[in-house]
Amino acid sequence: MINIKDKFVNYIHSLQDKVTGSLEEVDGKSLFFEDRWERPGGGGGKTRVISNGNIFEKGGVNTSVVYGTLSETMQKHFDVEENEFFACGISLIMHPENPMVPTVHANFRYFQLFNAEGELKDQWLGGGVDMTPYYFWQEDAIHFHQVFKKVCDVHDLKFYDKYSKECDKYFYNHHRDEPRGIGGLFFDYLRPDKDRDLSFWYQFVTDVGDVFLDAYMPIVIKRKDEPYNDKQKYWQEIRRGRYVEFNLIHDHGTLFGLKTNGRIESILMSLPPTVRWDYDYTPEPGSREAELIEAIKNNQWLKF
Amino acid sequence: MINIKDKFVNYIHSLQDKVTGSLEEVDGKSLFFEDRWERPGGGGGKTRVISNGNIFEKGGVNTSVVYGTLSETMQKHFDVEENEFFACGISLIMHPENPMVPTVHANFRYFQLFNAEGELKDQWLGGGVDMTPYYFWQEDAIHFHQVFKKVCDVHDLKFYDKYSKECDKYFYNHHRDEPRGIGGLFFDYLRPDKDRDLSFWYQFVTDVGDVFLDAYMPIVIKRKDEPYNDKQKYWQEIRRGRYVEFNLIHDHGTLFGLKTNGRIESILMSLPPTVRWDYDYTPEPGSREAELIEAIKNNQWLKF
Repeated sequence: MINIKDKFVNYIHSLQDKVTGSLEEVDGKSLFFEDRWERPGGGGGKTRVISNGNIFEKGGVNTSVVYGTLSETMQKHFDVEENEFFACGISLIMHPENPMVPTVHANFRYFQLFNAEGELKDQWLGGGVDMTPYYFWQEDAIHFHQVFKKVCDVHDLKFYDKYSKECDKYFYNHHRDEPRGIGGLFFDYLRPDKDRDLSFWYQFVTDVGDVFLDAYMPIVIKRKDEPYNDKQKYWQEIRRGRYVEFNLIHDHGTLFGLKTNGRIESILMSLPPTVRWDYDYTPEPGSREAELIEAIKNNQWLKF
Repeated sequence: MINIKDKFVNYIHSLQDKVTGSLEEVDGKSLFFEDRWERPGGGGGKTRVISNGNIFEKGGVNTSVVYGTLSETMQKHFDVEENEFFACGISLIMHPENPMVPTVHANFRYFQLFNAEGELKDQWLGGGVDMTPYYFWQEDAIHFHQVFKKVCDVHDLKFYDKYSKECDKYFYNHHRDEPRGIGGLFFDYLRPDKDRDLSFWYQFVTDVGDVFLDAYMPIVIKRKDEPYNDKQKYWQEIRRGRYVEFNLIHDHGTLFGLKTNGRIESILMSLPPTVRWDYDYTPEPGSREAELIEAIKNNQWLKF
């Protein structure tokens, strides 16, 4: 039997190397700084952070492999009585300097729960990718979605529809009745069942991870030299405020991490470098800024 | 019998006028802009916002008087089966431009719950004040607390100790194990009982409201012309990040508002104008920035 756990641990670390290497290459100025940390209860992580680059104002590509006793908060969260857990994952977020380049997020994770006798009682894979542009190019949105649709279609023709809709549902600022961005994929609790074993889900999740750079990088390269002015940077900072709102109010991953004494700086690494909140900031009708809001609310890129 | 409800509605509006008038006077440049809004379910509010002033980079002094049917979320929140509610309050927050001038927050509110027959089943007053400096002057912290202690002592010699401790407990960034600032007072569910009628609590809460300007204004006047540099502005923006974290992760008022379809722009008016998140930003040992953290963690101002 293939040991999915060890394979996935290797996978996230090699993906971390591949992604940080490629992002450094395209940035051409800043390198990722690595901060290794240990978790008092068991395990640890490698937080890699980039800042003040040619392209990336701030970004992080983190891996963690943690295990130990489930706290009461975690038992409550998962609604289980199991005693021990193992979790590993990669989580990345990139905030470009240029408002014409979108912010991107990806996360892939594997979870195991054990009973008091140390027997594996539950396990699942999860993850997702989503992109948050500040200015809208339909071709970019289509490209991003097409890359993931292609991977989904290899595994099941229903997956793209299902997981892109779950993404739209998850990355939603309910209090503003507005999506976070143009979506992508979101899946969780991918468990082995009678039709599909864990290897199937492992293949699916790692295939999605493998095409992350194919989805994002061409957009970075295409938009990184687009000119922009102060007003457009201002708009990016206003929209980054919505990103903060999502992460701190709605994102289960962030809130779960904060409640379970996760490593604060690795969790909040996702927050943008500079952010603005103006009272009742509304873009002028017909402007490119208004066009973005229109676009993300109407999922136009799904018409391809 | 004195109608506390009408008196409190008048009180919050006259306090709004008094506070906005005084803040405009000391600012000397910007005026508050008033945005009146109506609540679809009943009532409405007056949001007053100031921005880009000589002193105040952003601030708001809002009143609202709302009533109607309790939503399921609200019933769950209060753990009641009552049908109708009435609520009114004033909420203010000021974010100065100069990092040497502290941010301040105050809120005073009155709540009524009615059963299906329209009978008043519960009512309470609540509120609080707290100050968040970016640089620490012990004399300012002492002044701020002394003003409120004096008012507390008039009503009950135990109040200052009780409500200043509740403030420290409430305005706490648990995920960082750090207070939001130097505290102040916090009280909630002040209900009439056998010892104290609602008039007693009305007098206490409005007395606290009445001295708000005495507590904050002398500090503004004393610090508004303190010189500051870019590095100190940067530190203010980093600390404002903690303020955002508190308001979006921990503040019950904010989260309650967002969950109950409150008016988003009036609720999030509290967020600072410009904010920064750097990875693992830690002030140099011995610096004035490190001194602030030391001070807010050690409650030095309570030694007076």
